[in-house]
This record gives sequence, structure tokens and C-alpha cells, in this order.
Amino acid sequence: MAMVGRLAALGPVGPGARLGILGGGQLGRMTALAAARLGISCHIFTPEDNGPASQVCPMVTLAAYDDLDALSRFAASVDVITFEFENIPAASVAHLAALRPVRPGWKALETAQDRILEKRFFNDLGIATAPWAPVTDGPQSLAEAVAKIGCPAILKTTRLGYDGKGQVRLNAPGDSAAAWAALGNRPAVLEGLVPFVSEISVIIARAPDGATACFEPTLNHHREGILHTSSVPAPIRPQTAIAARAIAESAALALDLVGLLAVELFVLADGSLLVNEMAPRPHNSGHWTMDACHTDQFEQFVRAVCGLPLGDPSRFRAMRMTNLIGDEVHDWPLLMATPGARLHLYGKVESRRGRKMGHVNTPV
Amino acid sequence: MAMVGRLAALGPVGPGARLGILGGGQLGRMTALAAARLGISCHIFTPEDNGPASQVCPMVTLAAYDDLDALSRFAASVDVITFEFENIPAASVAHLAALRPVRPGWKALETAQDRILEKRFFNDLGIATAPWAPVTDGPQSLAEAVAKIGCPAILKTTRLGYDGKGQVRLNAPGDSAAAWAALGNRPAVLEGLVPFVSEISVIIARAPDGATACFEPTLNHHREGILHTSSVPAPIRPQTAIAARAIAESAALALDLVGLLAVELFVLADGSLLVNEMAPRPHNSGHWTMDACHTDQFEQFVRAVCGLPLGDPSRFRAMRMTNLIGDEVHDWPLLMATPGARLHLYGKVESRRGRKMGHVNTPV
Repeated sequence: MAMVGRLAALGPVGPGARLGILGGGQLGRMTALAAARLGISCHIFTPEDNGPASQVCPMVTLAAYDDLDALSRFAASVDVITFEFENIPAASVAHLAALRPVRPGWKALETAQDRILEKRFFNDLGIATAPWAPVTDGPQSLAEAVAKIGCPAILKTTRLGYDGKGQVRLNAPGDSAAAWAALGNRPAVLEGLVPFVSEISVIIARAPDGATACFEPTLNHHREGILHTSSVPAPIRPQTAIAARAIAESAALALDLVGLLAVELFVLADGSLLVNEMAPRPHNSGHWTMDACHTDQFEQFVRAVCGLPLGDPSRFRAMRMTNLIGDEVHDWPLLMATPGARLHLYGKVESRRGRKMGHVNTPV
Repeated sequence: MAMVGRLAALGPVGPGARLGILGGGQLGRMTALAAARLGISCHIFTPEDNGPASQVCPMVTLAAYDDLDALSRFAASVDVITFEFENIPAASVAHLAALRPVRPGWKALETAQDRILEKRFFNDLGIATAPWAPVTDGPQSLAEAVAKIGCPAILKTTRLGYDGKGQVRLNAPGDSAAAWAALGNRPAVLEGLVPFVSEISVIIARAPDGATACFEPTLNHHREGILHTSSVPAPIRPQTAIAARAIAESAALALDLVGLLAVELFVLADGSLLVNEMAPRPHNSGHWTMDACHTDQFEQFVRAVCGLPLGDPSRFRAMRMTNLIGDEVHDWPLLMATPGARLHLYGKVESRRGRKMGHVNTPV
């Protein structure tokens, strides 16, 4: 008889270990399912009762992200901590980091939480973004930003925007006052519209020892500000794919990130790239990997944060991922009956408008 | 806003439904992980604390299989009931069947529980088995069986044998007394050794409406009585593959089975087949489907017992499944670092000799 056992906390945490995940949505759910495959159990910390992740984990802490006592108990029960949701308060991350390895670290989370920090981070690395200007102190700074960036442009809140929320379009300088009010007078950034020909994203994994493994870029289509499809292979030039991977690798290194980093990019007509935004976690645009890669993004995420060998990210077939938004989930009987289609549902009971209910991977 | 909701109990039970599983081992674990992908949550009924399935399900009833009160509460909480373990007492199955749809039904479980019923079932369908004789009342009936079957032969208990347990080889009639004692004087069956050239298995799914979907036959290699590898494509003649599928379909129909039926077969030199045994559930020899088929055996099992459309069982690449038995699980760092290999671990803490700890699927 021998124990599979936990390994030393600073070395890899393999089968038998426990991974703590802050956030209880579908990314946590799919991470926990991938962890289970490796014999690793997860403990979910979430303020949401019966969320997607909690449905697949016996260990759940239901508490607010700033409940330090609950965070302490949570940390004590796990070997390593990660996030499926980056908007965790700084004090909570610091509290956890004093107790257990926290991956990715604060720098990645902090940068991803704030559009100004994020754009500055990429620009400081010499990586281009759309032209932008901070709008941090009201109508006067918005006027200056409009003068600098021009119109049309998009005004986005610096924090907590996702799926097209927290942003409004300015077609002319005269729209400024209404746009500022529409965002609730919150700190924002004005981004110039760029004439991109396509949107791609690339997801890289980085291990504690600095090893990386990158998924190939995927072509993304959005609908009403929400990702609709991600397809591989993306119809981009080989040099563009190389550049996209290099951007992700450079960013992951500069953040000293351990885990996954997803970078969304605009492709211009000449093949050059502008960074749109990043996320230091599994990403919706990587769901195609679940049925097309030797190691999918969720297992790769678990491997990276647990300090395990990174898996083979290469693709063995072409794939198109389609999100099921809101009532589209009611197409499940048809999707289940479609030969070859791989359906992934998130266990959400209510199919509200704009809500991501699941996705389907279709070999192409 | 619309509810995904449960459908009528006698129709399909789809996303949002709850599947009850009796048995808490790795087959239940992988079934629950597949169900989660379809938005179906599982409730595990098991006498084993912290077993493989319980680690991935928030709903677990820890009770004996003959605890009727616990079975009643379990049934009340689910929409449909199935089994990852067929040795459930008849009274328990009858009790459950009065409360909820039980799939597969008692006939399949009863037949699979008893080697004599099983062999008679196949022979009555005109399907050949190795020559056999019942040994139900002690040394005298064993002597008669040896006279009929000859030696060498294998004496197997009629019930509760698996992974080579509950069986002993007779090389000569003189071994009878020792063999009978070795099995603990339990009812048994004597099977003649057949000169097979290979062992294959085939797994079929059958839906409530009688629709079927069959995985292709896999070539199995055993080591010390325990399945070691399953490989596809199996190096068998096309006519043999057709015959194997027909046997599985015929048996599933005769059992009026809803769920999965796995049939193990011996292939003789002329390509003809003899049934070894069957199991009315997912089967170890179908684990290769997890990384090689559009719909794997666990998702197919969930679809069948929930009355959902059966998925596409076709294979998109060649695969070899290798079990990790006992201390072989300690090879996980190497396996995780092997490009293309897909590791599946079961969350078992102790790696006892002969215990199935996980498996690895390797594209070939």
C-alpha cells in the first residue's frame, strides 16, 4: 500500500491535492471538471448560491469576496489558490497570498482589473493598443480625450466591464455628456475605433518555472458585444500567428504570471496586431480547445497553477465553438442530435437575455 | 426570462434534471462528469465514504444498498435512477422502481448478477458461450461438470466475481476439491477453456424508444485477470465486427435494456465469437471512447438513461487505453508530460495492489 498523497506545498501539487478557486461561474465549473480528471479536487469560494461551479464540487464556501475569516478557512483547506474571476479585492488577494500560493499573483489580477493599467502595461512593453486616453475626472477630461482620440470612439469604464457592458459609443463630440452619464460618472477610458479586419485571441499557459505552452490563435466573432463564435484554424497569416503568440508570451513573462493568460487582439489589414484586452484565466474564446486539443485550456490551467508539467496544446482537428446565449440554450435537443457536435451546458437554471448558458463545439 | 426546467418524468430528462446513480466508484465519477457537461446533476448513493464519484457531486447519500428508507429519500430527490454497479439487491431495485424510472431494469441487472443466468440468456438467444456447466451443490456437481466440460477449465463463482476474483483454474480433475474450497464452497460455474486468438468487447447504448448506437469493438489485453489495455481499431475481420455488434444489439433488445450494455467476447481462429460476459453499464474497455469518439460511453450512458437523443458513437482517431493499476498510478508525472496522452485519475487515495487507480488514453 502506498499513498498518492499531497506533495510539498511549494513543489507541484498533483493527484490528491486540493485546488481553491475564487469564483463560481462556468469557468470554475469547467476548471473543476478538468481538475477531477487529474484526481485533483476543488474548493469553490463564491458569493453565489448553487452557481455553475458549486454544482460539481462537494466543497463550497458561500461568502463575500471580502470576508477575510471565510477566506482564511478556505485557504487552510486547500494547497493552492486561483481565480476564475479577476475582480477580487486587493486586500482579499493579499490576505490569501499570506496563507497559500496564489496563482496568478496580484500583478496579473491588478492589471486585468483596470483598463488604464492594462493598456499602459502593454504599451510599456512596446505592444500596440487602439489609441486611448484616460477619462478619470469627469466631463473636462472626457473633452480632452475626445480632442486627442477623435470620433467615433468607445467610452469604457476602467473597471468591471465585460460582454459589452460598461461601454458606450461616441459618434461625435456632442455625445460626450450623455455617454459620461450613461456610464454612471465612473472612471473610464476613451478608445479610438480601429479599422480592424478581424478579431483573434490567443491563450498562453505559464508554469511556475517559466515554461510556457500556447494555444493557436482563434478567430472570434461577436454579436451585440458578446462573443458568438471562436474558430480554428483562424484565417490569418503565419506571421500574424507568430506575432500573436509573442505578445501573449511577452505579457505573461512581464506579469510573472502562473496560470493562463488570454489576450484579445485586433488584426489590421496589413496583418499587424493591436491588443484589445486580456484576462488572466481561462477564456470563453478557448472553449474550442475542449474538443480539439490534446490538452484543453481548463486542464492546462489546472496544470499551470498546480505546478504540474504543462500539457500538449496542439490541435488535432478543426473546430468551431458557438456560445449559447440566453434562450439559445433551448436548442439543446437539436444540438444533442447533431452528429459530431459536443454540447457543454453550465447548469444555469434561468436563461436570461445575454447570459452565457453553454456552448457547442462543432468539428469543421 | 425562461426556465430550462425539468421535463415530464416519463419524457426525456434534460438539462436541469437530476440523475441518481447507485454506486460510488470511478464509473459513477466519470458518468457524473459527463452528466455535468450536459447540465445534468447527479446524486450518488453509495456505502463508501469519499469514493471517486462522491468527490465530484455535492449530493451524496452514504448508506447501505439495502437501506430502504435512504433509498426512498434518494429516489424522491432525482428524476431517473441508474447504476454504475450491478450487484444491487433485488428488493432495493424493486423498491426504487416503484418510485422512479429505473434504467436499466431488473432483468438486465439480474442477468448480469449471475453467471448461470447470463450464460443461459445468451445461449437461449442462440449466441454461443464457452462450454459451461453449473456447479450449484458441491463436489458431486463439480465432478459431473468436470466430466462434461473436461480440463483445463475455470471454476468461477456465479456471483460477485470481477477482475479475476472469484475464479480458479482446474488443470486436471484432481484439482476439483481444492478449487471448490478455494472459492469458499459457493455456487459456481465451470467453464471450458477455449482456444481464442483475441478478446474483444463491444458496447451498445439503447434508448427508451429502442434506438441503439454501438461503439466499435475494441481489442482487450488482460494482465493477471485485470484489463490492461483496450485498443481501437481492433485487428479483427469486418464480418467479426458486424457479428459482435449484432450480439450486443440482440442482447440489449432481449433484456429490453435502457442504458449501456458491454459484452466481452472471445474471437476464435475462424473469426467466430463466444460471449465471455456482459455488464449493463459503462465498462472499463470503453474508456478509450472518452478521447476518441464524438460521444463517449459516459455521455452516451447519461443520454440513454435520461431518454435524450443518443449521440454519435463514431470514432475520429485511433486510441489505446491503458489502465493504471495499483502503484502504476505513480507514473503520473511521466504520463502528464507525454505529448498527446490523456490522463484520467479516479481520486482514490490508496493505491492498493490490483486496484484501478486511473487510465491513460494514448492516440496511436
